[in-house]
Amino acid sequence: MLSKQTVKYIQSLQHKKFRDEFNEFVAEGPKVVKELLLNGKFECKSIYALSIWVQSLEQEILESFQNIIHVIEEHEFQKMAHYATPNNVVAIFKKAIPATKIDVKKNITLILDGIQDPGNLGTIIRNADWFGVKNIICSRNTVDMYNSKVVQSTMASLARVNVIYTDLKEWLLNNHEVNIYATVLNGSNIAECNLDKECIIMIGNEANGLSADIIAMADKKITIPSFGLAESLNAGVASALVLYECRR
Amino acid sequence: MLSKQTVKYIQSLQHKKFRDEFNEFVAEGPKVVKELLLNGKFECKSIYALSIWVQSLEQEILESFQNIIHVIEEHEFQKMAHYATPNNVVAIFKKAIPATKIDVKKNITLILDGIQDPGNLGTIIRNADWFGVKNIICSRNTVDMYNSKVVQSTMASLARVNVIYTDLKEWLLNNHEVNIYATVLNGSNIAECNLDKECIIMIGNEANGLSADIIAMADKKITIPSFGLAESLNAGVASALVLYECRR
Repeated sequence: MLSKQTVKYIQSLQHKKFRDEFNEFVAEGPKVVKELLLNGKFECKSIYALSIWVQSLEQEILESFQNIIHVIEEHEFQKMAHYATPNNVVAIFKKAIPATKIDVKKNITLILDGIQDPGNLGTIIRNADWFGVKNIICSRNTVDMYNSKVVQSTMASLARVNVIYTDLKEWLLNNHEVNIYATVLNGSNIAECNLDKECIIMIGNEANGLSADIIAMADKKITIPSFGLAESLNAGVASALVLYECRR
Repeated sequence: MLSKQTVKYIQSLQHKKFRDEFNEFVAEGPKVVKELLLNGKFECKSIYALSIWVQSLEQEILESFQNIIHVIEEHEFQKMAHYATPNNVVAIFKKAIPATKIDVKKNITLILDGIQDPGNLGTIIRNADWFGVKNIICSRNTVDMYNSKVVQSTMASLARVNVIYTDLKEWLLNNHEVNIYATVLNGSNIAECNLDKECIIMIGNEANGLSADIIAMADKKITIPSFGLAESLNAGVASALVLYECRR
């Protein structure tokens, strides 16, 4: 049974204001929920699921979480799901405190300046996980990493990448120990400029790119070579291409 | 003034069934509509716009299309828009007949096997345009290229890339004049296998990858190297990385 209060609470977590106030967020769908449970980075507070999901669980997971699993009916599920597409589990997790002391040496660090689309941020976090990037530093106006669409599209990479929201200029001043690359439309071809394997890569807003004062802090402006007529690439795609070239 | 009939017709074009029946589709938002008008590949049948959009048009465009521009009010606009986010123009275009006789030599051709997500297909078309790919061959179960979300996310690259829906096996048998690469999770590292600049690249469904009978037709299985723990990459990102490596 699902109380009205619970439904209201879960719905409230669609909004950043309430995620910040209660320090919790929602993950939805069997794959993401199971991976987050197994990973353990985010403490799980409660799970609302159809019996079909509970029956599909391995004994070990079931035993660890049985105290917080609430079996609900399909009609109840629809009331609180953030997504229109049918899923069979919704879980509430506690946000994690990001590690703020990070080492930019021997790593690639990603800087995001004003990414607005949740799907793009999710894709970038998943790309970071694929290419072994441990830390992503976001400007304060970047979309919230705990937005449901971000959580969904990271495919649980959210638990393996450290995401920090801060003042980018200040952060860059304090961490300029490796080369800083700004991804722009009129820089050097990434395939020709021998990118360092230890570096900071900056990706800008979908429509406006990186802000001028952030570009000014870069050691080099870099560009993905184009062979056609498209004006630009999606921010998720652009981040993957630069990371690939760094790792290559 | 917007008649009930027009609203109904535009709404019907959200469904593939009606897009096929009437051979028309909808594009929404100032950027996409303007680019499609300028490109001219798709014949524009009618434009429904707020006066603010019409006023922003260059004289030349205005003159070419003034006979089919209908200025409407904001409350009318909301009735027919496919998107929740406010836009100020919706246009109906005629679908184009794809070129079926294509030359796989001296080109990269992309094969899509069952891509389901409209955003992914849109991103792949945009990537193709960026990397100078002229033709994309889709299995019949790939999402429709005229789906509004696809149209929106291609950013008008839709007009510059030829997209064909057909039986993949038959098509591959008839066009095996260059190497066929299957993108899978257990193939050769793309950075190490010196991909041909004239080739066919195959990308599979988001959850299940390429079907076994399609993989069986490939000359080589290729893989994007991973440096972290993410299980997979988004299909849009994967296509961009393989295209980049081919062009590099």
